[in-house]
Amino acid sequence: MKILVINCGSSSLKYQLIDSETEQVMAKGLCERITIDGCLTHTTTGKEKYSRNVPMPDHNAAVKYVLEALVDSETGALASLSEIDAVGHRIVHGGEKFATSSVLTEDVIAAIEECNDLAPLHNPANLIGIRACMKLMPDVPMVAVFDTAFHQTMPDKAYIYGLPYRYYSDYKIRKYGFHGTSHSFVSKRTAELLGKDIRDTKIIVCHLGNGSSITAVDGGKSVDTTMGLTPLAGLPMGTRSGDIDPAIIEFVAAKENMTAEQVTTVLNKESGVFGLSGVSSDFRDLNKGIAEGNDRCRLAMEVFCYSVKKYIGSYAAVMGGLDAVAFTAGVGENDPLVRKLATEGLEFLGIKIDEKANQVRGEEICISTPDSKVAVWVVPTNEELAIARETAALV
Amino acid sequence: MKILVINCGSSSLKYQLIDSETEQVMAKGLCERITIDGCLTHTTTGKEKYSRNVPMPDHNAAVKYVLEALVDSETGALASLSEIDAVGHRIVHGGEKFATSSVLTEDVIAAIEECNDLAPLHNPANLIGIRACMKLMPDVPMVAVFDTAFHQTMPDKAYIYGLPYRYYSDYKIRKYGFHGTSHSFVSKRTAELLGKDIRDTKIIVCHLGNGSSITAVDGGKSVDTTMGLTPLAGLPMGTRSGDIDPAIIEFVAAKENMTAEQVTTVLNKESGVFGLSGVSSDFRDLNKGIAEGNDRCRLAMEVFCYSVKKYIGSYAAVMGGLDAVAFTAGVGENDPLVRKLATEGLEFLGIKIDEKANQVRGEEICISTPDSKVAVWVVPTNEELAIARETAALV
Repeated sequence: MKILVINCGSSSLKYQLIDSETEQVMAKGLCERITIDGCLTHTTTGKEKYSRNVPMPDHNAAVKYVLEALVDSETGALASLSEIDAVGHRIVHGGEKFATSSVLTEDVIAAIEECNDLAPLHNPANLIGIRACMKLMPDVPMVAVFDTAFHQTMPDKAYIYGLPYRYYSDYKIRKYGFHGTSHSFVSKRTAELLGKDIRDTKIIVCHLGNGSSITAVDGGKSVDTTMGLTPLAGLPMGTRSGDIDPAIIEFVAAKENMTAEQVTTVLNKESGVFGLSGVSSDFRDLNKGIAEGNDRCRLAMEVFCYSVKKYIGSYAAVMGGLDAVAFTAGVGENDPLVRKLATEGLEFLGIKIDEKANQVRGEEICISTPDSKVAVWVVPTNEELAIARETAALV
Repeated sequence: MKILVINCGSSSLKYQLIDSETEQVMAKGLCERITIDGCLTHTTTGKEKYSRNVPMPDHNAAVKYVLEALVDSETGALASLSEIDAVGHRIVHGGEKFATSSVLTEDVIAAIEECNDLAPLHNPANLIGIRACMKLMPDVPMVAVFDTAFHQTMPDKAYIYGLPYRYYSDYKIRKYGFHGTSHSFVSKRTAELLGKDIRDTKIIVCHLGNGSSITAVDGGKSVDTTMGLTPLAGLPMGTRSGDIDPAIIEFVAAKENMTAEQVTTVLNKESGVFGLSGVSSDFRDLNKGIAEGNDRCRLAMEVFCYSVKKYIGSYAAVMGGLDAVAFTAGVGENDPLVRKLATEGLEFLGIKIDEKANQVRGEEICISTPDSKVAVWVVPTNEELAIARETAALV
């Protein structure tokens, strides 16, 4: 089947056309500045990449250009749109309503709308993309794949906060977790690499990128994860604070004469390794800074890796043991220093890193020594492929 | 030496008179409702406990009644006030200024005042108690013992939050940690019980009471602890939330039309196991509720114990191993169910609990099996004795 995977934001739209039998990318691209002016960047596999400024007053226009690009006789990947068998949409928040991917119907769309409250920036944008695709491809089956769904297996002791209970019953305030598609994909692949039935494995997936989260995957199920009600929680990230003493918000609000909302914006956009280093949210820049002797880059790197290490210990405790740790996403796949610092001193857990193997970037590779009781792997994630698989399985 | 230990709050004052040679309590008591009306409860060891309503318009009056009670010819413990060799004051927040206890001088008092900002409810009250004692006992040496001092050995990667760096440099926003006197006392005692030099030990101290915190004590030094800038952070507690997704504050503020300050008050006073259970902040009531089949009491208990377990795993990772876990304070010393749930499934770390020994309450006892690689102990804490020891050592 040929699956079009759509990841729609408020002013952008990323897409990939994937052949679900060969799992090869046939074409991919990005619409940017939707509702502002509009720019399409497209690459059909084997052909040249190009960018075009085209007016995108709304998401319908963006989807129209994507479809045109896919069937362009010279630069396209398809002879006709009828070759598209299904569309898979990435949806950020499925709340407690979606524990699995779902074929999109009006009822499903209504249920996603009911989760808008929990992801006011993301879900409405995702829905605009769905509507635009439905309008232009009315007969093509579509599937919603949720970032939160994989984590719906968490037990209540893991997802309930120590808050007045009515915050949960009235407002659905609880831990949801994100990056679920990636955590699911990478844990499955890690079990394959271990040569084990995933039901017999205890795996910690460290999805470390600009946004980062870690999940304890016990027997193939998410039993705990670091992100929370929102993607702000857990690890410090590129620009996000992660968990802090909640009293700090009031403290900062009073010091800087700000509202809770303004402080939360600082926590989302000006914090994490960017706020600590004062240099960058990009770990390549931190590494450069460290090499140049910048102590705040050193601090940002150490704070981040220390937090990863603490969660590895914590999630081993949650699962009562550990078979493997998998590093994935931009930083996890490409930063040997992060992987080294995050696992240093964990020999008592049975983790022994092979320093030479750990130098590899962006490749699927075992970075623990042959006698390491716990296997440590770099496993490149592929959320689009995971969405294509989920979609193909449902239509 | 005879040491008077003072723990002064905004409207209360707790005291103990301790003989530092025998380490016996000679007398103890409590002043309540200071500045309102006033009530003194006093017990001299071996004599009858009594309560008296006496006017306490200020803390000077309270201290005066305490001193009178100590030298009362019938119910007192001393022939004359000149027998008091020193006074030890508990101070909540020493910021970054105090890594050890300090003999009180005008300079030290000024430095404590500079920390008021970080503990606006506690430090000013502590200072009032100091001034009142100095006025009535001008020639007696006095010592300040800080709740935060023991944690000043944490490395920066443990105490710095993932926030804009200037929040630390301008406002001193960082993790300080509390219950330091207890964590120090209990870790020292645990090393003795292990028969080891504390410099060769890795100990996790679980101080679980109405306020709860856990500390990783590596070689006798605090290397990480759960409380933060304030005592709100870390574990869910009697009425405190502990760590939550920081975005929840803005979310609740918007839903309930509250300020950050008001939400923080809810997090401090209406959350934790009280908020979850809807029944009580007292673990005895939770146990009763669980026995009666109350599912929210079950949930509150599980959320709490799950959090303790996660920190045990996390702090073992921080220290790169683990020799002992010590449970202390009201809940830690007296609740077998908490200790059981918090350590269940940690056999992979070398923890094996002796179920029979674990039934004991309030006694110093090893609750792990003889073949448990990690020793688990119940070690009753004694903050007053710890303050008396610190005081005796400095005067």
